[in-house]
Amino acid sequence: MESKRRKGILERLNAGEVVVGDGGYVLQLERRGYVKAGHWTPEAAVEHPEAVRQLHREFLRAGANVLQTFTFYCSEDKLEISGNVTSITGAQINEAACDLAREVANEGDALVAGCVSKTPCYVKSRNETEVKAIFKKQMDDFLKKDIDFFIVEFVDHVEEAVWAVEVLKTSGKTVGATLCISPQGDMHGVPPGECAVRLVKAGADIVGINCHLDPLTCVRTVKLMKEGLEKAGLKAHLMIQPLGFHTPECNHTGYLSLPEFPFALETRAMTRWDIHKYAREAYNAGIRYIGGCCGFEPYHIRAIAEELSAERASLPPASEKHGLWGAALEMHTKPWVRARARREYWENLLPASGRPKCPSMATPASE
Amino acid sequence: MESKRRKGILERLNAGEVVVGDGGYVLQLERRGYVKAGHWTPEAAVEHPEAVRQLHREFLRAGANVLQTFTFYCSEDKLEISGNVTSITGAQINEAACDLAREVANEGDALVAGCVSKTPCYVKSRNETEVKAIFKKQMDDFLKKDIDFFIVEFVDHVEEAVWAVEVLKTSGKTVGATLCISPQGDMHGVPPGECAVRLVKAGADIVGINCHLDPLTCVRTVKLMKEGLEKAGLKAHLMIQPLGFHTPECNHTGYLSLPEFPFALETRAMTRWDIHKYAREAYNAGIRYIGGCCGFEPYHIRAIAEELSAERASLPPASEKHGLWGAALEMHTKPWVRARARREYWENLLPASGRPKCPSMATPASE
Amino acid sequence: MESKRRKGILERLNAGEVVVGDGGYVLQLERRGYVKAGHWTPEAAVEHPEAVRQLHREFLRAGANVLQTFTFYCSEDKLEISGNVTSITGAQINEAACDLAREVANEGDALVAGCVSKTPCYVKSRNETEVKAIFKKQMDDFLKKDIDFFIVEFVDHVEEAVWAVEVLKTSGKTVGATLCISPQGDMHGVPPGECAVRLVKAGADIVGINCHLDPLTCVRTVKLMKEGLEKAGLKAHLMIQPLGFHTPECNHTGYLSLPEFPFALETRAMTRWDIHKYAREAYNAGIRYIGGCCGFEPYHIRAIAEELSAERASLPPASEKHGLWGAALEMHTKPWVRARARREYWENLLPASGRPKCPSMATPASE
Amino acid sequence: MESKRRKGILERLNAGEVVVGDGGYVLQLERRGYVKAGHWTPEAAVEHPEAVRQLHREFLRAGANVLQTFTFYCSEDKLEISGNVTSITGAQINEAACDLAREVANEGDALVAGCVSKTPCYVKSRNETEVKAIFKKQMDDFLKKDIDFFIVEFVDHVEEAVWAVEVLKTSGKTVGATLCISPQGDMHGVPPGECAVRLVKAGADIVGINCHLDPLTCVRTVKLMKEGLEKAGLKAHLMIQPLGFHTPECNHTGYLSLPEFPFALETRAMTRWDIHKYAREAYNAGIRYIGGCCGFEPYHIRAIAEELSAERASLPPASEKHGLWGAALEMHTKPWVRARARREYWENLLPASGRPKCPSMATPASE
Repeated sequence: MESKRRKGILERLNAGEVVVGDGGYVLQLERRGYVKAGHWTPEAAVEHPEAVRQLHREFLRAGANVLQTFTFYCSEDKLEISGNVTSITGAQINEAACDLAREVANEGDALVAGCVSKTPCYVKSRNETEVKAIFKKQMDDFLKKDIDFFIVEFVDHVEEAVWAVEVLKTSGKTVGATLCISPQGDMHGVPPGECAVRLVKAGADIVGINCHLDPLTCVRTVKLMKEGLEKAGLKAHLMIQPLGFHTPECNHTGYLSLPEFPFALETRAMTRWDIHKYAREAYNAGIRYIGGCCGFEPYHIRAIAEELSAERASLPPASEKHGLWGAALEMHTKPWVRARARREYWENLLPASGRPKCPSMATPASE
Repeated sequence: MESKRRKGILERLNAGEVVVGDGGYVLQLERRGYVKAGHWTPEAAVEHPEAVRQLHREFLRAGANVLQTFTFYCSEDKLEISGNVTSITGAQINEAACDLAREVANEGDALVAGCVSKTPCYVKSRNETEVKAIFKKQMDDFLKKDIDFFIVEFVDHVEEAVWAVEVLKTSGKTVGATLCISPQGDMHGVPPGECAVRLVKAGADIVGINCHLDPLTCVRTVKLMKEGLEKAGLKAHLMIQPLGFHTPECNHTGYLSLPEFPFALETRAMTRWDIHKYAREAYNAGIRYIGGCCGFEPYHIRAIAEELSAERASLPPASEKHGLWGAALEMHTKPWVRARARREYWENLLPASGRPKCPSMATPASE
Repeated sequence: MESKRRKGILERLNAGEVVVGDGGYVLQLERRGYVKAGHWTPEAAVEHPEAVRQLHREFLRAGANVLQTFTFYCSEDKLEISGNVTSITGAQINEAACDLAREVANEGDALVAGCVSKTPCYVKSRNETEVKAIFKKQMDDFLKKDIDFFIVEFVDHVEEAVWAVEVLKTSGKTVGATLCISPQGDMHGVPPGECAVRLVKAGADIVGINCHLDPLTCVRTVKLMKEGLEKAGLKAHLMIQPLGFHTPECNHTGYLSLPEFPFALETRAMTRWDIHKYAREAYNAGIRYIGGCCGFEPYHIRAIAEELSAERASLPPASEKHGLWGAALEMHTKPWVRARARREYWENLLPASGRPKCPSMATPASE
Repeated sequence: MESKRRKGILERLNAGEVVVGDGGYVLQLERRGYVKAGHWTPEAAVEHPEAVRQLHREFLRAGANVLQTFTFYCSEDKLEISGNVTSITGAQINEAACDLAREVANEGDALVAGCVSKTPCYVKSRNETEVKAIFKKQMDDFLKKDIDFFIVEFVDHVEEAVWAVEVLKTSGKTVGATLCISPQGDMHGVPPGECAVRLVKAGADIVGINCHLDPLTCVRTVKLMKEGLEKAGLKAHLMIQPLGFHTPECNHTGYLSLPEFPFALETRAMTRWDIHKYAREAYNAGIRYIGGCCGFEPYHIRAIAEELSAERASLPPASEKHGLWGAALEMHTKPWVRARARREYWENLLPASGRPKCPSMATPASE
């Protein structure tokens, strides 16, 4: 079968390869007109498959080695609460999303990760049986389709993530788990090192951080996870898929606490050069699965692939349309733009906001 | 024939309708991995039609009444200088672009505008015969296909735009012409009012401004054009498709003179709420063809359509995935986010950049 | 008599000497506890002569060649309206102020300028006879004392300044006149060039600008005055005493229109290095009487004197306590501070505000 | 004798009175032209007593209950290293400074504190005998004069401060001790709580923090000292004299590490309204000796006194020249300025820097 011939995620990571993840789907599809902010549910996989397919393809072209199924918040309880989708079942979305990711992944050499995220049920009931049943149902949808491994993501209580890992491991597939927590720990105050230990003990093969905070903060948190694992004598691969926005003033609630969330985040967006720095920092921290979450557009993923092109011994397809470090500006008509066709220029630029009446830091909401 | 039944652009404008334009293709497709910055040529119409088709579709869903052919910088001389595209001819791109725009326009009720932009030949030779021959060749490509009208855009010398209008009017089709100039006038110092007069005298049915400067500055320039026309006793429809970035410190060269051009403009990006203000200002200034250029993503076009939904008596398809003024945040889990489900919040927010080490204004390059 | 031996202001300017003015008294004495903001009247000359004397002395040490009498807003009508001073007459203040300036001026080689400023009467009545009577009364107070010349300052209608000049010229003394206007002209819209012409025709020997706007804007306005005089074939010396604050967003009302006026201007204050640039620009514009107004503290005046030390062939006494361009930092204990003992460092520094929640520009009040 | 009748510092603090300290001398006298930056030595006490006397007087008028002798860095070893003062001995300066403080203190009801600060000898030798000999010598100078108590200040190693306290306690006089450290602790890493314990055990009657960091950070550090004392079952009065600048990005080296130190700190200066917040916070933290250090000008000290006027049951003399919360603006000629005569306006104002090309935070030097 087709999937047999693909090198699996663990094979790649065990061989020391850098695996580039994909970017953020919900925010980008919101801007493209297919996801409703506030709900953030992925019914577009059924309603507008062409839009999801195209975004998958852009991430693939940008260098992603993994395409995640567009199944964020696609648990039955979340869809019901949202009330956004009435004529489509969660199973329909999950299955359509698997097909879309598989179709595009096969246009290259990418893997497909079936993704589950936090459930409203956990906060409401904290009932292990109920929560696990929800994860089990979503997993069963995925297992009808050709996916390569699982990712648990966007969970801010390690306990819930552990339950998800325990369910997904029953499939026999590889499981990665990323929490959306800060260096201070999860929402119950469990420190990152301890979170990592619990996840690995539950069976996670890859652990790390996603969303909520900016790249360098997330690198710090993954480092704490790594230290925790080392102290405990445990081994696991590390992954990271941070926010694509600057969030220097955020506390552990992350960007949800910013006044700009979710409709005025533009001015915080990472440039491609910010991503170069991030990719290098993540690599230097020993992380080998490096991607992005909300705010990561295709060109940000390309920037990861370009920064690590020597380590990966390749450039992604989309680099045909990008001069490294601005090289293609050499032929611009304006002399001062031609002068920007070099790494030093972009590495040292401090970009102006063009908004002199706005502050540079906000006061986050406090829970 | 199909195109006969569509209400033409002048019919719409003469009837007092608001026509929503589409957004910017080259910058957005650069970020999606299909256009090379520095070259900015539209070979993706042939190489990756699915990417161009999808972006057209997103603008259509967002409310655009016109889809512009993705033919920016697609004159023979520009393609040759660029050297970016060797195995594809300009004619192939122009024709493919017309087909793509037509295909998607017909998914709704949109018109297709065949677009020409400034030529390197003009600056090099300033030879009317040569420049007109280039526009004629591109026009002939378009005329093989089913387009509704023409747009001359991104021209910074009114003389060149006049020549383009004169050529395109020989087709018998409606012609719109937008200059990328500042309130100070074109690159030869011709003031906006005088520019408008010359364009209308040359045959332009619609005149206005596109690109280079931020929305409110462009509204000011169109107002000057309007005043010029009124003084001269001339009549024409007005259009505007400004930059989607804040450029308070720019001189007449526009955003090309900013240190952030083209790879660090993120922090200057307009929010959807900025676009609401712009759409209202443009409408109040008497402009009825209102769209965007570089930096305008689908959600910015949707914001124009939403701000003017009463005037247009409709909401665009993509508004199904958007609560007006943040209304869909009402069901968010965090109480402070729910409190943002109202117009006052977003209208008054001064978004923080999250970049305290960066300035808020830059020093533009001086020509 | 003592005053006979001093080289007069016109002797100095006619000889091409640079005359350094003093700084701002009212704002500085407000901070020191002797002037009431809102009233801004100079009763401290009587109530706390030691405070006024000490500030005079600091300006003298900093290099000032002229000490202005501390008689701002000391016309009878202003004192009455203010109601701030009940047991002291205007004459008492004017006379005490002359004595204080004289006493300290004689500690060096400085001149004393008797100063009058705009009257509430002008705005209320616009009656030439009444306004001139007020200026005449204040002049008579001054003429009882040993002053060297007169300065009319802080007047925003050239008409009122002309009346003041006409009165003061009856004394036979030299008269300088500075308006607090913007490059757009005075409060009746008279452009700077025309203002200068009217003042010189009224008898002013020195004309220029003071207060309200930042140094480089004031230099621009004085240049316009100079051009106006040249066109009219008139000659006069030029003087400038600008605000010591950054006011990039101000209109013609100047810093009064800023939200920060008068109790939160700290963050706009000029550094000594800003003053170096200003002094050089003013000198290059042909201005030879160069001082400061509100916001200019003694060290700002010293910076003028230090920037122009070659032209003046001397350093002021206070430079004994100041290494040029930071030279005295060479012996600091921290290596990174020692590295700042050079001109390039301070000339190129972009100082951070330490206030990331504040904007960098405000919206001025509109009249 | 005169000093017998004054209520001593401990009497006041034991009675629960708020004691207002004075502000910063060296930075302010640098700006006035009497102190050389880089050296920062207090020879002005001998060379220009009128300047020191006047600044004492302004602090007294502003509400200070204590005047500190202007003897900063006036140990023999520091003066010698500085090389700034050759013809004046340290003893001369110390004695002159005591006389000046006494003279002005007696104009009101203020106390005089003889001040010692850190010695170069400590860092060079860390030899207890040598360092104590230096403190002893300076103390002996003070004891020839009429001082009320001692303050050890601007010491960043608690060990050195302990030695100073031990020496000064031999005089039988009250001793206050303030470290210039951050919440992270002293330069050897001793946490604030432990520092406080050591100082009190050495005999300090009052402990706290001065200089180096902004007011609210210093309040945090004093709170940590208080907690340390409480845990240790010790009792002492608390004092605070922080920096008058915003330093949000500073590490434990404090403002010395900022690129703006010492000649471009203007834009970081506290407004009087910032000081109101600080005074309230300090009071609420249980601190009763509340003053300022570098950057605190007379009007900042007045703001402390005004914020705590109810607690102190009085306003300082300089409040005759200040409307509380801007009240005196009520009679301003501009209506929008009159509208600022209220607390809400000033409390909520976010002052703009007027410097759009500058960042809002800097990168501190790292040791």
